[in-house]
Parts: sequence; structure tokens; C-alpha cells
Amino acid sequence: MADPRKTSLNTATVRQQWSLEQCIEGCARHSFAAIAPWRDMLAEMGVERAARHIRDAGLSVSGLCRGGMFTASDAAGLRKARDDNRRAIDEALAIGADCLVLVVGGVPGGSRDIAAGWTQVENGIAAMLEYSRQVGMPLAIEPLHPMYAADRACVNTMRHANDLCDRLGEGVGIAIDVYHVWWDPELFAQIRRAGKKRILAFHVCDWLVPTRDLLLDRGMMGDGVVDIPAIRAAVEAEGFDGLYEVEIFSAQNWWQRDPDEVMQTVLERMITSV
Amino acid sequence: MADPRKTSLNTATVRQQWSLEQCIEGCARHSFAAIAPWRDMLAEMGVERAARHIRDAGLSVSGLCRGGMFTASDAAGLRKARDDNRRAIDEALAIGADCLVLVVGGVPGGSRDIAAGWTQVENGIAAMLEYSRQVGMPLAIEPLHPMYAADRACVNTMRHANDLCDRLGEGVGIAIDVYHVWWDPELFAQIRRAGKKRILAFHVCDWLVPTRDLLLDRGMMGDGVVDIPAIRAAVEAEGFDGLYEVEIFSAQNWWQRDPDEVMQTVLERMITSV
Repeated sequence: MADPRKTSLNTATVRQQWSLEQCIEGCARHSFAAIAPWRDMLAEMGVERAARHIRDAGLSVSGLCRGGMFTASDAAGLRKARDDNRRAIDEALAIGADCLVLVVGGVPGGSRDIAAGWTQVENGIAAMLEYSRQVGMPLAIEPLHPMYAADRACVNTMRHANDLCDRLGEGVGIAIDVYHVWWDPELFAQIRRAGKKRILAFHVCDWLVPTRDLLLDRGMMGDGVVDIPAIRAAVEAEGFDGLYEVEIFSAQNWWQRDPDEVMQTVLERMITSV
Repeated sequence: MADPRKTSLNTATVRQQWSLEQCIEGCARHSFAAIAPWRDMLAEMGVERAARHIRDAGLSVSGLCRGGMFTASDAAGLRKARDDNRRAIDEALAIGADCLVLVVGGVPGGSRDIAAGWTQVENGIAAMLEYSRQVGMPLAIEPLHPMYAADRACVNTMRHANDLCDRLGEGVGIAIDVYHVWWDPELFAQIRRAGKKRILAFHVCDWLVPTRDLLLDRGMMGDGVVDIPAIRAAVEAEGFDGLYEVEIFSAQNWWQRDPDEVMQTVLERMITSV
């Protein structure tokens, strides 16, 4: 069992029901340790105001979702991504986030060249690092499930993320979300390879059978086929002692429920299923 | 461009419109080189009758879809899979298939133990090999996209398939379907590792953006983001000179069209997009 006092709410989990302000209040009310806001919700509330509310509620911030989207079809697109990522670093700093999570972007628009995407991602992170190191904001590459390779992230395995970290050096690590990596026979070897220093975040939810939608049918921990305790044990065996961030996109189920019920269920499942 | 005279029709591509008998006639009419029937359609037509029609039409059989489904929650389930796979070998022999394609099965039912699935798969193939070697029917492990790890196949990368082949020895190889493996940064290295001897089949279709369904929204070659010519070139650089098998599950598009239009489009796309 995971300690429910280390739970962090990724705001996507209740984004259809609550504003960021309500999420902050909800986290405080349910004694969550932390929150992980998405940038659109942060923008809506106002960064400074959100930062103050989060601080006043005594919450940590397990990560800011999200920077990245480095891939583009032309130089203007690459520049735009660079500028947006600089702003994301500033926002992560403003709210005291443990890291800025990077969803790196898919196959460059209009092309069939995933290898070009890999290069753009590596160059994009390298370009961010000068500033992120200077201000001390860790960048967390999140390998997404391969079903998102085309349109969201062309880094899809822990091995690839570790390879990038090897080449990019200090200031960059990995956000491990069980949903994206659970199927990989190399998972445990690559968690060991990552080690404590690189494991910047640990996200949980579950893979449902059947899964009815590529994006919006994630499961609550315990409702699917992922052996979450085994993955948590492997991550913690490396010395990771950070938060358990819960991120569930669920259009037909959890987004339809009373968010206080969702929060309560999350805490219960930490004990039974994480 | 790929030589359209080497095209094989996987019958799933027009399964909503045509019976196997109509597929055979269609392949002959459109000058396809080969066919790859699914077992349910084969059973419906009758194996011997289908074999005779395929022979009379002058068609090769690029593979039989499918054996496998080795994973189960108990000994009775494992035995049932073993018996069914023996029958699948006999059917593949009867129709003169180049190989029996194996979709290996997902996480054992009711469990969260994907590693147990991996072991059952390896044991299951090992148990088949005595008979398949004796009768000379090559077994082709098809790594499926990781989004099928839970419920269809827990072998999801070329690396894993190659590892299995290393351990299992003679008589087993790999069916490479671009849909399942296109995203993998190790793809080209693992194609080289497989080499001519292990590459038993090459399947084409495309990954659409967006993909609206996990199972039934595959694209026609050229309509998605997969660089199919690059993968074909890599496979043929190893010496593969087999057929191009087209397998498109497409509930909302290609399954709704006149199957003769589908066949014609396949041949055109061989030239422009494979």
C-alpha cells in the first residue's frame, strides 16, 4: 500500500467538474499533499493568484503539466515552441513545482518522419536546458504510450527517455506514468538505469480492459490490469520518495461523478491498489 | 514503390463485405498474388473446399491468421490453447500457407501479471514447435502494438520477438506489421537483427491521425503517418522477397465501401505509398 498522505491530484482528473480554485480547495479538504495543475487551468485562474492559493493551502506541487510539444513542420513552429517552453518554466517556478513535465510532441506535422521528431525533441530540450538549469527547474521527460507517438509524444519508452537523459546531461529526468509504460518488458531494467536522480515524478492510474477510447478512458487504480504496487516498489527501491500523482482522463466515468467522491476514491485506492 | 504483383489480401480488409469464397474470386479478378485468410472465414467455407479454390485460383497464401492466444488463467485454458494451435497448424498446412501467424495473447485473464503472460507465451510456442517443425510449418510471432498488450498480445516489440526467437530456435520467426512497430526507435536495428531467415511475413496498412478506435480504425497505405517505404526497404535489405500483405480493419471507412474499389485502391497504393 502507498501512503495516502503522499497523494497529489493532477487536475485533469476532475477537470470537467472543478476549476483550479476548486481543485486547490478540494485537495486541502481531502488532505492531499500536493497538486499538479495543467497550464490552461492555471492561465484561467491567473498564475500569481493560483500560486498564492496553493501556498496558503499548504500544498506542494508535484509538477506542472506541461511543457514540450517540440516538434513542428517549420522554423516558426519550432520558435513558437521554444518561447512557450520558456514561459512554462517561469510558470513552474512561480507555483513552486517540483518539475516541469514534458510531453514532447509527435511526428512533425504533415510529415511521415518520426526520426525528424526525435531530433527536434532532443534539440528542443537542449535549448531549454540553459535557462531551466540557471533557474533550477528540473525538466521531466514523460514517455507516453506508443499509441500517442503520432500526435502527442514520439518518446514512448523508458529506454528512449534514458538515452535522451544520457546525452542531455544535468537538469533533465523522467516522469514515470504507469499507464504509459506498464506493458514494456524493459520497464524494470530501465527504472534501475534511471535511478533516483532521474526519477522526477511518479504518476498512477490504470489500464482498463476493454479500453474504449485512446485518450479519455483511463481507469482508477485497481480497476485495470497494471501491477501498480510492483512498479511503485521498483521506483522506490531506487530511492524515489516523492509524491504519487493521480492523473485520470475518464470522459464516461470519473468525469461524470461528484468530484468529492473521486477524491475519496483516490485516497482509498492508494491503500488498496497502489 | 512496391510491386503490386506481390500483393496479398488479408481477408480482414473486406471481411464485412465478402465471404472467403468472394475474397478468393476477388483476388483472382484483381490479379493479387496471394491471400491470407482468417480462421473463422476458413471454417465457414470449409478448409478443404477453400484450399481447392485457392489452388484453382492460382493464389499463394502469405499466412494463416491466426494461432496463438497462449495465455490463460488456468491449466484447462492452456490445454485448450494448445489443442487449438495444433488444429491451426493443420489448417495452415491444408491451405499451403507460408506461415502460421501467432497473436500471442494478453495478460492472463483475471490477473495483473503480464510477466506470467510472457512465460506462458514462450512455453506455448515451445510446445507447438515439436509438431510444427515436424510438418514444416513456420510459426510467425507478430508483435502487436502495445495498446493490445492487455487483451490481445503481450509481445509488443521487435526486440521481444527477437529475444523469443533466440531462445526458441529453429522453426519460429516474425511477422512484421508496420502498424504495430512503426513508432519504435529500435525498429531498424531489430529488423537487421531479425535478418532474412526470421522475417516470415510483412504486413502493411497505415496509422491514421487521429485514430478514432483502438481496433477498427486502421488506414489505407498513404493515408497515415507511417513511412512504409522506409520499413519495406529495411526488410528487403535483409533479403526478404516475400509478399506484401494488406490488413486493414476499418469499420467506418473501408468496410463501408465497394470491395472492388478497396482492392483497386490497394493496388494503386502499392505503387504510390508502399
